[in-house]
Amino acid sequence: MSELSVNHLLGIKYIKESDIQLIFETADQFKEVINRPIKKVPSLRDITIANLFFENSTRTRLSFELAEKRLSADVVNFSAAQSSVKKGETLIDTVNNILSMKVDMVVMRHPNPGAGVFLSKHIKASIVNAGDGAHEHPTQALLDSYSIREKLGDVAGKKVVIVGDILHSRVALSNIFALQMQGAQVKVCGPKTLIPKYIHSLGVEVEMDLRKALEWCDVANMLRVQNERMDISYFPSTREYTQLFGVNKKLLDSLDKEIVIMHPGPINRGVEITSDVADSKQAIILNQVENGVAIRMAVIYLLASKIKQ
Amino acid sequence: MSELSVNHLLGIKYIKESDIQLIFETADQFKEVINRPIKKVPSLRDITIANLFFENSTRTRLSFELAEKRLSADVVNFSAAQSSVKKGETLIDTVNNILSMKVDMVVMRHPNPGAGVFLSKHIKASIVNAGDGAHEHPTQALLDSYSIREKLGDVAGKKVVIVGDILHSRVALSNIFALQMQGAQVKVCGPKTLIPKYIHSLGVEVEMDLRKALEWCDVANMLRVQNERMDISYFPSTREYTQLFGVNKKLLDSLDKEIVIMHPGPINRGVEITSDVADSKQAIILNQVENGVAIRMAVIYLLASKIKQ
Amino acid sequence: MSELSVNHLLGIKYIKESDIQLIFETADQFKEVINRPIKKVPSLRDITIANLFFENSTRTRLSFELAEKRLSADVVNFSAAQSSVKKGETLIDTVNNILSMKVDMVVMRHPNPGAGVFLSKHIKASIVNAGDGAHEHPTQALLDSYSIREKLGDVAGKKVVIVGDILHSRVALSNIFALQMQGAQVKVCGPKTLIPKYIHSLGVEVEMDLRKALEWCDVANMLRVQNERMDISYFPSTREYTQLFGVNKKLLDSLDKEIVIMHPGPINRGVEITSDVADSKQAIILNQVENGVAIRMAVIYLLASKIKQ
Repeated sequence: MSELSVNHLLGIKYIKESDIQLIFETADQFKEVINRPIKKVPSLRDITIANLFFENSTRTRLSFELAEKRLSADVVNFSAAQSSVKKGETLIDTVNNILSMKVDMVVMRHPNPGAGVFLSKHIKASIVNAGDGAHEHPTQALLDSYSIREKLGDVAGKKVVIVGDILHSRVALSNIFALQMQGAQVKVCGPKTLIPKYIHSLGVEVEMDLRKALEWCDVANMLRVQNERMDISYFPSTREYTQLFGVNKKLLDSLDKEIVIMHPGPINRGVEITSDVADSKQAIILNQVENGVAIRMAVIYLLASKIKQ
Repeated sequence: MSELSVNHLLGIKYIKESDIQLIFETADQFKEVINRPIKKVPSLRDITIANLFFENSTRTRLSFELAEKRLSADVVNFSAAQSSVKKGETLIDTVNNILSMKVDMVVMRHPNPGAGVFLSKHIKASIVNAGDGAHEHPTQALLDSYSIREKLGDVAGKKVVIVGDILHSRVALSNIFALQMQGAQVKVCGPKTLIPKYIHSLGVEVEMDLRKALEWCDVANMLRVQNERMDISYFPSTREYTQLFGVNKKLLDSLDKEIVIMHPGPINRGVEITSDVADSKQAIILNQVENGVAIRMAVIYLLASKIKQ
Repeated sequence: MSELSVNHLLGIKYIKESDIQLIFETADQFKEVINRPIKKVPSLRDITIANLFFENSTRTRLSFELAEKRLSADVVNFSAAQSSVKKGETLIDTVNNILSMKVDMVVMRHPNPGAGVFLSKHIKASIVNAGDGAHEHPTQALLDSYSIREKLGDVAGKKVVIVGDILHSRVALSNIFALQMQGAQVKVCGPKTLIPKYIHSLGVEVEMDLRKALEWCDVANMLRVQNERMDISYFPSTREYTQLFGVNKKLLDSLDKEIVIMHPGPINRGVEITSDVADSKQAIILNQVENGVAIRMAVIYLLASKIKQ
């Protein structure tokens, strides 16, 4: 069946491997669309989508908004700063109000883990989780896997190391689920205090030594250091983080193979990776961004197909 | 004549009963439109509308924006935070600047009572008042009456009590005008300090006892408690407010008839009404929101028809 | 050749007189378009434009947004408040990320002089400078000259005085370049401390006496007093500024000819000019705003034509 097994995209945890493949095949077609002069299809003229961002986000919001506009959906934006949430309204009431205005789909970023899952049990529209606290960021994991598939031909059998603050990262968690589901091997590497205790229960190995991790992997996904959270309770200092877990060109060139470098952005140049790494041919960081639009078009298109049935 | 008697919607005070009926009949048609798969009509392709919000508002701004987009108007948004108002520009200059960019209609929310009326005397575009301080909020009153008409068949002859902070409420004032014009009877109920002294001059009775008010009415419109204003100078505390003026299911069930519960939102669940009341079949709160889009489409469409003449 | 000599509009300094004429002739056509009932042309259906405002701006952002929408371009807005710039990302990374989402043109306002020029050397999209610190604001200068041409038939040979804070004004600098290039004579007039030392090297005379300046000129462009910057280090007080450099009707009427009054807005009525001056027939302030949309349509259209080649 050419349809998703779910009515929402709440997390990679809640979908199947066949869903991922269907999303990728659909994204292949949309990637052609967005590289044409006219980058639009009229597919979703009859769908209204509300982007509810209870947390600031530049690239994710823009990426979703462009994806929606290129599908010809009607789009309304709503950000927390203007929100009646501040006036004491419940999340369900806020969303139900918006849905009463005949909105078909909700793309939501929320600071609280599980906000989307909770909401999906109480409202009637399709929900796409655009990041919920430290829980999941499923479209990011999908575009990451899609970019690996594009670069290396396949995700199955590949070795991926995720480097950085695993503990607070929804990108890490969604990537682990997505990669394992597709048959990749995943290790994590980072400061001990930033690796969650439950990581082994996910079938993920921890490699404390960055060089060993890089020697092992085909792909290194370098998580962003969130300077605002990098205080003494987690790790001594950003400089010391970079010494232990930052990647520079010299380190990359000393490996006996060429690995692929990924980063979810925004990059702190000189912290997670140096500028010569970020701008090297091994880095597929801007491809990730480009693929993000195609992936989001695919997710929205496939969920909308289920609404229309 | 199938046209409004006014060129602006500044307040219910400034329109006629026949205007209200024309808006309702037009809204009936747009309500059909927004319940179709394709929720758009091409009517206002040649109209540009600026939404000027000098005060934050989620639901009203979204509702207007969706109404405008579903009429295929061109829409530009402007919010106070970005505004040159902060740079010392007068309101007339700000609006005339925007109109010079060939904007045909202005939807304006402003903290100052009478801002729309003042502006209408100095500018050339149609103005829709989306709330001006404690003065009027005409589209809210129209959607409230439209929702009563939808639920009870007619507004004429119905008994409506408005409960809460009448003194600071543009929703209350616009509702009183609209309901009386259509032949409904209106009472208000709330803390003595939150009921304006001039209320009797409007032909509105005050009922201090909530139970008596509910026993009398067909419809109770429960105003939002604005916690930020609910300080000791007005009323002892939110808890005491709820004890005296909050509606719960037990109270509703103890009445000898089923009354309709309305709320302009956002709801403080457990303050003005309990959750079981908000979610009961007697509550038409989400219908109000849905009707808001149809009513705003009707108002904008009818005002635009006058521009095009 | 009917095309611009540049791929970006970074400043008047970087374009030729023939570019200005081409922009004006194109704007003539778009001015007809925006005065028709249907104010749109389908020209740029295949172009996506990102408005990146790293500084707040009401009128400039709205004017660009309307210009883009009237050319049928796809538009995405991005403002600094939501920006990952705050998360330590470089400007080039921010813009490259947005471009990876298949954006063709960037309209950018930035607090730093030269931000657009710098960016143009590192990215692939067309850039329109919508104001970069105290450097340039080329579309403002173009709409100013276009408004003079419309009012007086030509810019060549005209005498223009720019009055006010020349030192901090990108409007002044861009106007000086544009006016001189078209054969107008330019003087500046303002507090000595607010006139840059290098002004003579631009071939611009300084006239400290406002009456003499007005007696000399055909057009007076009255710059906005930025009250937030008008502290004791620059000038004693706003009141003293107005006494020396403000224009009132009595002063205008005492001249032996009728001069044209311009202002880039927002006006501080009673400071740079009195209300009777702002609202007089000599003032073309709202024409400037109207022409702004046509000029911006022309600039975007002509730059887009080069992309499509």
